[in-house]
Amino acid sequence: IDRDMQTVTLIPGDGIGPEISAAVMKIFEAAKAPIRWEERNVTAIKGPGGRWMIPPDAKESMDRSKIGLKGPLKTPIAAGHPSMNLLLRKTFDLYANVRPCVSIEGYKTPYTDVNLVTIRENTEGEYSGIEHVIVDGVVQSIKLITEEASRRIAEYAFEYARNNQRNSVTAVHKANIMRMSDGLFLRKCREVAENYKDIKFTEMYLDTVCLNMVQDPTQFDVLVMPNLYGDILSDLCAGLIGGLGVTPSGNIGANGVAIFESVHGTAPDIAGMDLANPTALLLSAVMMLRHMGLHDHGNKIQAACFDTIRDKKVLTKDLGGNSKCSEFTDEICRRVKDLE
Amino acid sequence: IDRDMQTVTLIPGDGIGPEISAAVMKIFEAAKAPIRWEERNVTAIKGPGGRWMIPPDAKESMDRSKIGLKGPLKTPIAAGHPSMNLLLRKTFDLYANVRPCVSIEGYKTPYTDVNLVTIRENTEGEYSGIEHVIVDGVVQSIKLITEEASRRIAEYAFEYARNNQRNSVTAVHKANIMRMSDGLFLRKCREVAENYKDIKFTEMYLDTVCLNMVQDPTQFDVLVMPNLYGDILSDLCAGLIGGLGVTPSGNIGANGVAIFESVHGTAPDIAGMDLANPTALLLSAVMMLRHMGLHDHGNKIQAACFDTIRDKKVLTKDLGGNSKCSEFTDEICRRVKDLE
Ligand SMILES: CC(C)[C@H](C(=O)O)[C@@H](O)C(=O)O
Ligand SMILES: CC(C)[C@H](C(=O)O)[C@@H](O)C(=O)O
Repeated sequence: IDRDMQTVTLIPGDGIGPEISAAVMKIFEAAKAPIRWEERNVTAIKGPGGRWMIPPDAKESMDRSKIGLKGPLKTPIAAGHPSMNLLLRKTFDLYANVRPCVSIEGYKTPYTDVNLVTIRENTEGEYSGIEHVIVDGVVQSIKLITEEASRRIAEYAFEYARNNQRNSVTAVHKANIMRMSDGLFLRKCREVAENYKDIKFTEMYLDTVCLNMVQDPTQFDVLVMPNLYGDILSDLCAGLIGGLGVTPSGNIGANGVAIFESVHGTAPDIAGMDLANPTALLLSAVMMLRHMGLHDHGNKIQAACFDTIRDKKVLTKDLGGNSKCSEFTDEICRRVKDLE
Repeated sequence: IDRDMQTVTLIPGDGIGPEISAAVMKIFEAAKAPIRWEERNVTAIKGPGGRWMIPPDAKESMDRSKIGLKGPLKTPIAAGHPSMNLLLRKTFDLYANVRPCVSIEGYKTPYTDVNLVTIRENTEGEYSGIEHVIVDGVVQSIKLITEEASRRIAEYAFEYARNNQRNSVTAVHKANIMRMSDGLFLRKCREVAENYKDIKFTEMYLDTVCLNMVQDPTQFDVLVMPNLYGDILSDLCAGLIGGLGVTPSGNIGANGVAIFESVHGTAPDIAGMDLANPTALLLSAVMMLRHMGLHDHGNKIQAACFDTIRDKKVLTKDLGGNSKCSEFTDEICRRVKDLE
């Protein structure tokens, strides 16, 4: 065993998942990234007491490695079966969902110079799963906001800003409507902001953020918000830079535990046809390398990927080219080696 | 009294409200629109039992006229003072918030050919105002979804589509997360869709709508959704066509009752300086004319407004020109008269 290698739990996922995972592994090899992959399947199983849980060997691997890389998982169809994405976030208390949205040179969208990060509270809020029928035809869903989770995500956002040379954090809320719950979230953000005088703090209504975002996304830097707002805004922002096929994502927990994932679908229509675009998973893997302190490897892989896209010669279909997944992957490998 | 005149309750509002209201009245006069204005102030007062209510003479006017046109209102600063916009929606049970977002020729944004309508449930959901502290540091907000309000808004959306030559209705939801509440909303949409076989019905997650919206808004037509999602999406869509300064809005209730409003702010910094842009209020007033069956007058005013913008010679600052509000207004009046 090479003592300098770090273990990562690889969850290839469904549909195009295995292909794009193979592409990432190939590029990592070309970059001599010191990663040993431990492949695991995470299809949920019913544990004692009928609770859904991820398989023990996947849990055990993640507990040991602390770091996961995950391809897309198909939406479970069995009634009562939980979303695997939610189950993973819950199992490992991955409380921060982080999505950097940065315009990619050469990949044309209506926007240029987007450079922002959405930081979403990943454990509570509208996702608490508490719902009731009050009387026939009247249903309530409960949004739960706690001081602890709000402070934790606010602290994460400011730490992130500081460690990533970012200048401002915007708290996104609807405290004009949900005065108590979003009010609590906002109060915690304000309190935490007091400890980060080097970072500019602003507050903005979610609707106003959406409006301003499509008019001029360059005004935003780091955005922090409750769960549902993050779900919405992270997808909106991904749209600005070209969609989920090119947007990386990380789910971060305490003590270094994290799972990085591509958030696009499984694309069953093109699965196994060597047509998939591995960019989102690759850029998520780059986030992972940085999280592990392997900045040089991360930077090199990212540069090779962006160079390939900017160059426009070898691109998958969804990126506007007509190359295969394997050709796109090989092109990135070639450039990674050139960067040695 | 001219028997062909219809009364409209005019709520000029705060800040630039009086100026843009005066502009609309002037243009209506030029267009010979058969409207008699009844001006009312709606600053909330405390009624018996300490409940906030709109002043009796404003309520009485609206009850009689059934139709209101409203400029921007400043956000109340007194603690416990309700949002006037919410109070008006509640007082008159204005259950449908309707915002057509149509690209304006000559007013450049990153998008062209946007032509969609957001229809927002305006009375319940996340805006029910029920919140509790469970224990110290743990707050819950309740989202209330009822069968009745869901069916009512779904029916409104399909009727709107049919009456406005639109082909499809998309229900926007997060029923994958809020299975019971959004599930109920979605089920009612599906049921109502059964009665409108001429209109195509689709369902889409809110996050997916946001992503697709910024990538290609032309794929959307009529969108119907619960309260908060409508708040977000209507602002996002307004952003696509140039912002709240050019986006009309209507709040529709039962039996023809409706209030049309510009949803931008009061712009206190330029109030009284003859610099405001009356377009959003004017286009809201055009929606109002159509609602009242006065299509010819509405079409004429809209054409004069759009011609003025397309022509680019007389524009307010925010529209990229350097004309005064009064000059812009006079230009529209001139064109209205030319269209006679
Ligand atoms: C798959 C779904 C449960 C999930 C969510 O709503 O959070 C997804 O949209 C996401 O953003 O990761
Ligand atoms: C002013 C505010 C209460 C309101 C809302 O949140 O509904 C506004 O954003 C709107 O969309 O009309």
